[in-house]
Amino acid sequence: PAPVEREPYRAGKLAGVAVGLAWTQVGGEILYVEASLSPGKGGLQQTGNLGNVMKESAITARSWIKSNAEKLGIEQETIKAQDLHVHVPEGATPKDGPSAGVTMLSAMVSAYTGRPVKAYLAMSGEITLRGRVLPVGGIKEKLLAARRAGMKHILLSKLNEKNVREIEERYLKGLAITYVDNMDEVLTFALG
Amino acid sequence: PAPVEREPYRAGKLAGVAVGLAWTQVGGEILYVEASLSPGKGGLQQTGNLGNVMKESAITARSWIKSNAEKLGIEQETIKAQDLHVHVPEGATPKDGPSAGVTMLSAMVSAYTGRPVKAYLAMSGEITLRGRVLPVGGIKEKLLAARRAGMKHILLSKLNEKNVREIEERYLKGLAITYVDNMDEVLTFALG
Amino acid sequence: PAPVEREPYRAGKLAGVAVGLAWTQVGGEILYVEASLSPGKGGLQQTGNLGNVMKESAITARSWIKSNAEKLGIEQETIKAQDLHVHVPEGATPKDGPSAGVTMLSAMVSAYTGRPVKAYLAMSGEITLRGRVLPVGGIKEKLLAARRAGMKHILLSKLNEKNVREIEERYLKGLAITYVDNMDEVLTFALG
Amino acid sequence: PAPVEREPYRAGKLAGVAVGLAWTQVGGEILYVEASLSPGKGGLQQTGNLGNVMKESAITARSWIKSNAEKLGIEQETIKAQDLHVHVPEGATPKDGPSAGVTMLSAMVSAYTGRPVKAYLAMSGEITLRGRVLPVGGIKEKLLAARRAGMKHILLSKLNEKNVREIEERYLKGLAITYVDNMDEVLTFALG
Amino acid sequence: PAPVEREPYRAGKLAGVAVGLAWTQVGGEILYVEASLSPGKGGLQQTGNLGNVMKESAITARSWIKSNAEKLGIEQETIKAQDLHVHVPEGATPKDGPSAGVTMLSAMVSAYTGRPVKAYLAMSGEITLRGRVLPVGGIKEKLLAARRAGMKHILLSKLNEKNVREIEERYLKGLAITYVDNMDEVLTFALG
Amino acid sequence: PAPVEREPYRAGKLAGVAVGLAWTQVGGEILYVEASLSPGKGGLQQTGNLGNVMKESAITARSWIKSNAEKLGIEQETIKAQDLHVHVPEGATPKDGPSAGVTMLSAMVSAYTGRPVKAYLAMSGEITLRGRVLPVGGIKEKLLAARRAGMKHILLSKLNEKNVREIEERYLKGLAITYVDNMDEVLTFALG
Ligand SMILES: [Ca+2]
Ligand SMILES: [Ca+2]
Ligand SMILES: [Ca+2]
Ligand SMILES: [Ca+2]
Ligand SMILES: [Ca+2]
Ligand SMILES: [Ca+2]
Ligand SMILES: [Ca+2]
Ligand SMILES: [Ca+2]
Ligand SMILES: [Ca+2]
Ligand SMILES: [Ca+2]
Ligand SMILES: [Ca+2]
Ligand SMILES: [Ca+2]
Repeated sequence: PAPVEREPYRAGKLAGVAVGLAWTQVGGEILYVEASLSPGKGGLQQTGNLGNVMKESAITARSWIKSNAEKLGIEQETIKAQDLHVHVPEGATPKDGPSAGVTMLSAMVSAYTGRPVKAYLAMSGEITLRGRVLPVGGIKEKLLAARRAGMKHILLSKLNEKNVREIEERYLKGLAITYVDNMDEVLTFALG
Repeated sequence: PAPVEREPYRAGKLAGVAVGLAWTQVGGEILYVEASLSPGKGGLQQTGNLGNVMKESAITARSWIKSNAEKLGIEQETIKAQDLHVHVPEGATPKDGPSAGVTMLSAMVSAYTGRPVKAYLAMSGEITLRGRVLPVGGIKEKLLAARRAGMKHILLSKLNEKNVREIEERYLKGLAITYVDNMDEVLTFALG
Repeated sequence: PAPVEREPYRAGKLAGVAVGLAWTQVGGEILYVEASLSPGKGGLQQTGNLGNVMKESAITARSWIKSNAEKLGIEQETIKAQDLHVHVPEGATPKDGPSAGVTMLSAMVSAYTGRPVKAYLAMSGEITLRGRVLPVGGIKEKLLAARRAGMKHILLSKLNEKNVREIEERYLKGLAITYVDNMDEVLTFALG
Repeated sequence: PAPVEREPYRAGKLAGVAVGLAWTQVGGEILYVEASLSPGKGGLQQTGNLGNVMKESAITARSWIKSNAEKLGIEQETIKAQDLHVHVPEGATPKDGPSAGVTMLSAMVSAYTGRPVKAYLAMSGEITLRGRVLPVGGIKEKLLAARRAGMKHILLSKLNEKNVREIEERYLKGLAITYVDNMDEVLTFALG
Repeated sequence: PAPVEREPYRAGKLAGVAVGLAWTQVGGEILYVEASLSPGKGGLQQTGNLGNVMKESAITARSWIKSNAEKLGIEQETIKAQDLHVHVPEGATPKDGPSAGVTMLSAMVSAYTGRPVKAYLAMSGEITLRGRVLPVGGIKEKLLAARRAGMKHILLSKLNEKNVREIEERYLKGLAITYVDNMDEVLTFALG
Repeated sequence: PAPVEREPYRAGKLAGVAVGLAWTQVGGEILYVEASLSPGKGGLQQTGNLGNVMKESAITARSWIKSNAEKLGIEQETIKAQDLHVHVPEGATPKDGPSAGVTMLSAMVSAYTGRPVKAYLAMSGEITLRGRVLPVGGIKEKLLAARRAGMKHILLSKLNEKNVREIEERYLKGLAITYVDNMDEVLTFALG
């Protein structure tokens, strides 16, 4: 990863971007989730060569935001008058699976509220409609990728804690891992 | 199942969640059905890697609620002004079949009325448009899974009673099984 | 068939339900067609794992009702302000073919008018857009299934009369068979 | 063909029905095209297990009617305020090809104007958007089927005249064949 | 080609029809493109068993007309209040490829303006959104087909001039070929 | 490439056209992206035999424009009242991949603002929703094609600089290559 590539998550200044961790055949990898708003009718657009399960994650994240808008300080009028676009570069690579749920949710809330996601933070976890964060696979590969990319903070489901314990200490050096049960905790950490 | 996983159905405090019983190649399993409302236009959204038969169960449950709204104490205006989202974690697992019908219906009515589903209750049964509850397969495996997960109450179709009778008593210890004919009985038991 | 299963068509008290006769690889079988209305915009919803030909039967039945609403005593305003849902349990079984046409039409008119379908009546026949009732296959198997299920009245197309004549008398004992040319005759008999 | 089957085209009293000639693997066959109107928004519904080419024939016929409504004595307001449904029994048989074009057009205009199609008339021909009638295949088999079914009048494209000339006289006995260039001639003959 | 078939392009009196040149496995062939308007909402309908590339040609032609309406003397209100239908007989033959672009565009503008396309004119060329005319294949076969059908004028892209030069003079006798760069030249020639 | 073909990008006078660089099995190639506006409802139309990834590039470019309209000097009212059509000749060739992103974006902004793209400029780069320009493949083949076609200016992602350094100097003669990080830089260069 050249210096140029690190810039986005290092800065942490641009609202609507969050960093996730993906698990591919060749190991772990960081991925960006970008969310942006534009004048519209409350539509949800998804791009980035996403499979159905990943698209359902975004739909679920969007519904959760709508149901919890008041708590999040987002006006229903804002949601209705804007189209939300979620994009995951890089377009040539097919992506799927539920593990980007927390990342999508964080990017979306960041876009709606204008609050940037914490710098050097990467996360991975499935979300449910009532706001729970479920465990995901490939934890070791994902953490190695996060470290390689210079990330400092990691958010995972509490139910992934046992997977982290099985990894040798030296691989985790420099990573502060926070375990969460639900989306409220994710957002408090990521956007707090 | 770690303590964390049991929390939702133990508490029984959150409206819009119900516990079902699924039958997979590796045995029975409990599954959650989550329903939530958000400002909208009466749409129905479904996520969780659901097959067509399972999606039709949700559509049927939704229609039954619309047709029986008055009896259920739900305003037609509420239905029209809200989008209903039904989600079944976990997104990586394809799910199908009609047996989650009663669970979907219960989660939906719970979301519309704000009344939580009874704690430690799991259910399995196909529903029809006029409100009948039909029998489903895999009863033995489903009951074992329910017990393993610490459930205490089970709702089944009366037409599944013969399947329960064929199971050895010791496998049923700790489970109180209630047989129902129709949705009214399901809701009286689950939300009463 | 346990006593419980017979209840619906025995009673004949619930509007929107009609009994059809299907022909499967393992013989004849009765099937229910359920129709219900709920506040909406004149939409038509179909569930129950139905194939395209069967879905077209429902669309054709719906069009015939719209074109003949006045004669049937159904207000166009009612049709426009309600969504019609047609469901055929059981969701796990794929169903197709045109022979449920008369059953679908009868269930729909029953739902729109609130008049229940005659008790112990089963029917099978394709319908056309101008209201004719066409012959269907599997007559022998269907009649055996109807008798086995305790049905007393059968409605068939006049063009199926020759198929009934080829069946030995003893198989038909207890069944009163009425032959019809068109939908008007079906409805006079079924809802009269 | 039993007497009952002949009734519709013999009578010629019901608007919205026209008789076409199809060419199947087992020879020629007559087919009915039914068109009906019901209160709506100018939609076009097609049923009867129709292939894409056949559906395009109906769409083309519908457009021609819209473009030529004034000449046909049909109000644009009527077209806009009604849904048009075209059905071709029998639903179990897949049907395709462009040769039902003239039949579809005739049934549609009959439905819009309330004028029944001439009794004992069968027709076969592709239509184009500017109203030309193109030749079709299987002429011999179609004419044999028409005669077998008791038809007396046949409408074909002028470009099919050469195909008729190649058929032995005795097969055509009792059939009066009229050749046409365009839709105006079809309608003058069929609805005049 | 019988005399009857030639009538349409000979006359050149009917607006909305243009003649194109197609290249099939059995040689070149002329094809008609028909365009017609009817009261509607600015929709675009396409029929005639067209492949996706050919459909995109029509969409591109339609957009170009919308963007250049003022120059063409077509009112935006007319475009918005009419549905445009483009049909290519014969429905039984699948058609595809971009070479009918100029023909589609000419037929459409002819329909919108009421000016008929020049008699005995055939054309072939891909169009682009900014109005350029690109070269197409099968020039020799197309010109032979045009001559066989009695056409006198041919429109081609300037970039096809080299292909024409490679054809022996005697095959081109009686054909006046005009080369064009862009749609403006096409329309000046075809509708001028 | 004949002189005629070069005209469009040489002139640089027509708004809505940009030149991209594609990588095909037979080497590099220049491609045009055409964008045009017409009265409508803010729709986005895409033609030119484009694959899903390429279509997503256009959707992403469109969203970025909507989100950054003020900065670009484009009125939201203009966006809402116009349909945007993006076309990539030549229709017979399937096209896909994310590398046309910058070209699509440039053509779109050019169409919205009426400012033509710089003459003799070709570009290649993936875009992201927050405006970053990502590297693409086939750099050597693309640059050879650009030179062959007489292009003088090239825009690439900074992350492609290393790929250019690996190419022998003599292949790059006559090409001025500019590296960019984000869309703002692209537009400043291309439309400035
Ligand atoms: Ca990568
Ligand atoms: Ca992730
Ligand atoms: Ca599980
Ligand atoms: Ca269940
Ligand atoms: Ca059964
Ligand atoms: Ca039936
Ligand atoms: Ca037949
Ligand atoms: Ca026909
Ligand atoms: Ca031909
Ligand atoms: Ca052509
Ligand atoms: Ca090329
Ligand atoms: Ca490019």
